[in-house]
Amino acid sequence: MISSDLWQANQDLSIACLEHPFVEGIAQGTLPRGCFVFYVGQDAFFLRAFARAYSIASAKAPDWEGFNLFHDLTNGVLEELQLHQNYAQIWEIDLQTTQPGVATRRYTEFLLATAWSRDIGAIAAAMTPCMRLYAFLGQKLAEPEIPNHQYSDWIKTYSSDDFEQLAQQLEDLSNRYIVDEPQAHSLYRYAMLCEHEFFQSAWEQEPVTSHPYGFGSCSLMETTKTALPHQSPVTS
Amino acid sequence: MISSDLWQANQDLSIACLEHPFVEGIAQGTLPRGCFVFYVGQDAFFLRAFARAYSIASAKAPDWEGFNLFHDLTNGVLEELQLHQNYAQIWEIDLQTTQPGVATRRYTEFLLATAWSRDIGAIAAAMTPCMRLYAFLGQKLAEPEIPNHQYSDWIKTYSSDDFEQLAQQLEDLSNRYIVDEPQAHSLYRYAMLCEHEFFQSAWEQEPVTSHPYGFGSCSLMETTKTALPHQSPVTS
Amino acid sequence: MISSDLWQANQDLSIACLEHPFVEGIAQGTLPRGCFVFYVGQDAFFLRAFARAYSIASAKAPDWEGFNLFHDLTNGVLEELQLHQNYAQIWEIDLQTTQPGVATRRYTEFLLATAWSRDIGAIAAAMTPCMRLYAFLGQKLAEPEIPNHQYSDWIKTYSSDDFEQLAQQLEDLSNRYIVDEPQAHSLYRYAMLCEHEFFQSAWEQEPVTSHPYGFGSCSLMETTKTALPHQSPVTS
Amino acid sequence: MISSDLWQANQDLSIACLEHPFVEGIAQGTLPRGCFVFYVGQDAFFLRAFARAYSIASAKAPDWEGFNLFHDLTNGVLEELQLHQNYAQIWEIDLQTTQPGVATRRYTEFLLATAWSRDIGAIAAAMTPCMRLYAFLGQKLAEPEIPNHQYSDWIKTYSSDDFEQLAQQLEDLSNRYIVDEPQAHSLYRYAMLCEHEFFQSAWEQEPVTSHPYGFGSCSLMETTKTALPHQSPVTS
Repeated sequence: MISSDLWQANQDLSIACLEHPFVEGIAQGTLPRGCFVFYVGQDAFFLRAFARAYSIASAKAPDWEGFNLFHDLTNGVLEELQLHQNYAQIWEIDLQTTQPGVATRRYTEFLLATAWSRDIGAIAAAMTPCMRLYAFLGQKLAEPEIPNHQYSDWIKTYSSDDFEQLAQQLEDLSNRYIVDEPQAHSLYRYAMLCEHEFFQSAWEQEPVTSHPYGFGSCSLMETTKTALPHQSPVTS
Repeated sequence: MISSDLWQANQDLSIACLEHPFVEGIAQGTLPRGCFVFYVGQDAFFLRAFARAYSIASAKAPDWEGFNLFHDLTNGVLEELQLHQNYAQIWEIDLQTTQPGVATRRYTEFLLATAWSRDIGAIAAAMTPCMRLYAFLGQKLAEPEIPNHQYSDWIKTYSSDDFEQLAQQLEDLSNRYIVDEPQAHSLYRYAMLCEHEFFQSAWEQEPVTSHPYGFGSCSLMETTKTALPHQSPVTS
Repeated sequence: MISSDLWQANQDLSIACLEHPFVEGIAQGTLPRGCFVFYVGQDAFFLRAFARAYSIASAKAPDWEGFNLFHDLTNGVLEELQLHQNYAQIWEIDLQTTQPGVATRRYTEFLLATAWSRDIGAIAAAMTPCMRLYAFLGQKLAEPEIPNHQYSDWIKTYSSDDFEQLAQQLEDLSNRYIVDEPQAHSLYRYAMLCEHEFFQSAWEQEPVTSHPYGFGSCSLMETTKTALPHQSPVTS
Repeated sequence: MISSDLWQANQDLSIACLEHPFVEGIAQGTLPRGCFVFYVGQDAFFLRAFARAYSIASAKAPDWEGFNLFHDLTNGVLEELQLHQNYAQIWEIDLQTTQPGVATRRYTEFLLATAWSRDIGAIAAAMTPCMRLYAFLGQKLAEPEIPNHQYSDWIKTYSSDDFEQLAQQLEDLSNRYIVDEPQAHSLYRYAMLCEHEFFQSAWEQEPVTSHPYGFGSCSLMETTKTALPHQSPVTS
């Protein structure tokens, strides 16, 4: 099965995510609140792009069953976003004004460029890491039982049977539609790297709001950190 | 004219690029050779994506003249790429095996996602910074005359009348097709930020080749630097 | 309001549809059963393409509310298709093996080419006729009351408040997103012509199944009538 | 080779085109001038869509060589269109105001919907019939030698080595990129049917200009013949 091969080939990154201090902080309930608030905002932005990518995939499905399966997955994202809305209320996050950070935007542009330009198998390959990795993390963090702390809900969501089912549904679609395996491996790994960087950026809390430039409505971000630095070359 | 408004609104970034040590290094001929070699490889990768974005724009042109103008611009990129081929020979760079760095990939995914998903005016807005900025830099560095050093050819290319004409042609297309001005401002600025970061990444020579992971054919990169670090949160 | 202008400008065609013998046959319950069976099969094929076009539109929506509104409209089509499934059972139609006729395929290719290549306002303009025309026909045929005959359910569906609401939702999206009005008029009228021809083809029951050629799975059709005739030129 | 299989599987239609009175009229120089004038106008419209489809294919090419090959083919279409410009001058046809007929529009929407939504192999499959069929017809009509009459230039163009080379280049791309063979067969056959109908519509000279409706700029047409007829059902 190509879906297992892809997951196996990226064990280094799934382990790196599991051991990442952001994820460990969720596991133990010790993650600084600011990191989680930042993450929820970024993840809401990400999931809106993810829903768009699913919609494109459904429109490209060669058969009607494929359309419906991808359409169901879109509905799954809309439910997941409803959860974020709940978090946002509890944690007092304004999801409407959240600006995407560098890692977020890089990941979403990758997914959307892939969705628009490639075939349905390639899209499935690029989207699976997000689902399978979160199912993996949720299930690991729920062992031996879901801990009782401020991040319990996150662990409950991603360790649930419902979420595992969505991940399997997308893997089934990968198995059905992937024809170019080397390309699938490349897209899958890139998405895994984006996942890892996503945790890292939340851990660092890339400052996205205090940039010196004004932006338009659909906008676009930049961090003060990366915008205008003149650093020395690493080697010269 | 929306094209002038867009350029004026981003003077801070065009000046920041002009004063960037990478560009100053080209101006004075003192840029470390390794930085330039890195840059040429990344730019070749970038231009291939740029040509694809032009092709998509031509296919979306509502009128036949628009198709032809974008098609001509694609031909312009192919000529520019021929120059890179020449550099590559002189500087012994293998363009075929060059892997994109983070800044390169982020910029190209943004351009391609925009080209596939948005209308022709939005595409023109996102693509203009690359052309207008380089014409600006070329012309500034050619004052009062083109210096005589290892980077003369670069300055000659981008200060040429031919290149100015291509930049104007794209700005004409922006003026003709942009209907959503706030969106255009947002896309234009994001591209300007990507341009600045592109110089910065060449200055730093992001290590793209020594990563610990194997990649597939169309692949995809990651730097050793950003792949698996566990840094402390910036604030906690 | 552009949505009313579009509808008003095509009164000739909405009247022509209302007075078309196919629609009059539905109104009076006298439509030959074979015509209706043909029509239901073609309409099911059409609606699957319509759902794909909505999915593409949702992916292109510049704002998240637009995504959700188009996504809801997709769900509306899926419900409408469920009705067809019911018809199919009652009327013993095998929707899985139905091949599209010329008029159907022409209309669906137009909608999909428009959805993939144009902006969201243009897509809304091309899709509205199907919704507004059916709401108009349903409401006209339900005056002064829904007749009691074999086609009552069809009239009930399209005269319902639910359907009127979906039509209005799409018109609201037209009003929100159309920027190029001449283009919108052109696309809207073409779709109206396709609607008229759709009724005509069902009235004529274009023979789609007895063609002399075999087709592949996602296939494609041709009528015996138009496939290989050598007619005299109309004028010479 | 899939490209030969596709051609072989559609011998019935290539023969039907060769024996079509329109093509025989070109062979013998007896085709009514009005038919040819109509055809040249429709073909110019068609080729502009064909060039757009090639541009989309080039943007989707997974490798850079593929981009360049499709880009070259686009250039080939632009040259072919230049020939039409010459015809137009000689035959006094105004290509700018030509409106597409039903058969033309149906074919172009099919090609564009395919180009936007499917992978590069599928696009190549849908586009090849136009190239291979014309090379076949040109070569057949040039046997034993190119006749000397008003349609010699047409025969010269399509029997030339240059055109054969373009057809082979597209078939090479089909062989390289087609992965879903049943889908390729279906798309190829549909395009062949569209080709046949294109000759038929020129033979009949579908009246496209005298329709009773005004159209917008990018417009869209309908024939007086098919617009508003109320015919009896074929069977009832």
